[in-house]
Amino acid sequence: MNISFDQLVEKVAEKIKNSMQQTFEIEASGRHVHLSREDIDTLFGKGYELNPAKFLSQPGQFASRERVTLVGSKGVLHNVIVLGPARGHSQVEISYTDANVLGVRAPLRNSGNIDGTPGIMIMNGTKQVILEKGLIVAKRHVHVQDKDASILGVKDKEIVQVEVMSERPLIFDDVTIRVSPHFETFMHIDFDEANACGFKKGTKGRIIKKD
Amino acid sequence: MNISFDQLVEKVAEKIKNSMQQTFEIEASGRHVHLSREDIDTLFGKGYELNPAKFLSQPGQFASRERVTLVGSKGVLHNVIVLGPARGHSQVEISYTDANVLGVRAPLRNSGNIDGTPGIMIMNGTKQVILEKGLIVAKRHVHVQDKDASILGVKDKEIVQVEVMSERPLIFDDVTIRVSPHFETFMHIDFDEANACGFKKGTKGRIIKKD
Repeated sequence: MNISFDQLVEKVAEKIKNSMQQTFEIEASGRHVHLSREDIDTLFGKGYELNPAKFLSQPGQFASRERVTLVGSKGVLHNVIVLGPARGHSQVEISYTDANVLGVRAPLRNSGNIDGTPGIMIMNGTKQVILEKGLIVAKRHVHVQDKDASILGVKDKEIVQVEVMSERPLIFDDVTIRVSPHFETFMHIDFDEANACGFKKGTKGRIIKKD
Repeated sequence: MNISFDQLVEKVAEKIKNSMQQTFEIEASGRHVHLSREDIDTLFGKGYELNPAKFLSQPGQFASRERVTLVGSKGVLHNVIVLGPARGHSQVEISYTDANVLGVRAPLRNSGNIDGTPGIMIMNGTKQVILEKGLIVAKRHVHVQDKDASILGVKDKEIVQVEVMSERPLIFDDVTIRVSPHFETFMHIDFDEANACGFKKGTKGRIIKKD
């Protein structure tokens, strides 16, 4: 092989840089609730505005100071965080572990795809809303900013695998790619998935294209 | 291609049969406790014998009727199943979800490898044992019976990947193979992993060899 030491260093550095560019941070989403304007009125009072406590990785999205209780036939979950801003439809995202605690069945769905899903009772003190639909376990997905899509080599709605580099490594299959100029590039998994892959803050993922 | 219809059918059937032979059933293990003879004495009384309630997939192993409580700094877990028969050392296997409930740190370990692990308090009524070590999150593994090892193409202690065929598919990496004539061929994962892969009774796995 006819290659100088410097060329070798260059090549290795480029390879590492490329492969690092193709990784992205993973975030674990705890159980949370999105509320419609109408359901905020019912639970917190007419015209009530959610109080942002912490802005999230996706621009404009925030964890509010408001907390609610989810009520199932077998158990309740207190102190469930409400995310803002208000949405067109209320949606409750839980894990299968949570579903077992509540004694409810929650289907695996992409966020926003709530037709035909079960509802659930949400309480704030003595105020309550009974959703007719909107209870889901969120399908894992990667938010990809426009400019990162070509680096990662992915398109909106593409299904990929994501390799997780951790103490408890695994490869998530059937991962939905969502591309938008309004996103920051982060993968979202729930706490069951986070625990299954030994997730810690800073854990990275890498796309594996499906043939 | 010069092949008759019958030959084609034969070849497809053989391919499907081979690939089915290479799958095995997955079992999800809930949190459980193995107790030493001495700790059974302390918790249940001198010479007490565990009462088998249900024999498990691994020959001789059983879920007993006995239940204990795990006590952590942040929470307790009641009704934790005791597996029999008695072992040389007590060992408590929980999930990361359980570790969060208890407020303890549990390292990821192969069963039996408990040197340097934390302990935990186990209670039965007012009787208690404080383990000095033995609290783990069990590493996923496949029990393989001798005769199945060659069909699956694996050796004892080999590290493989396992593809899970389910509604929430994934590929577990870093899976330990354990081969013994005393095993039945089953993969064991914990409930976090079961939830992360959408496990239901009957969910199958398939070995992917690591190069």
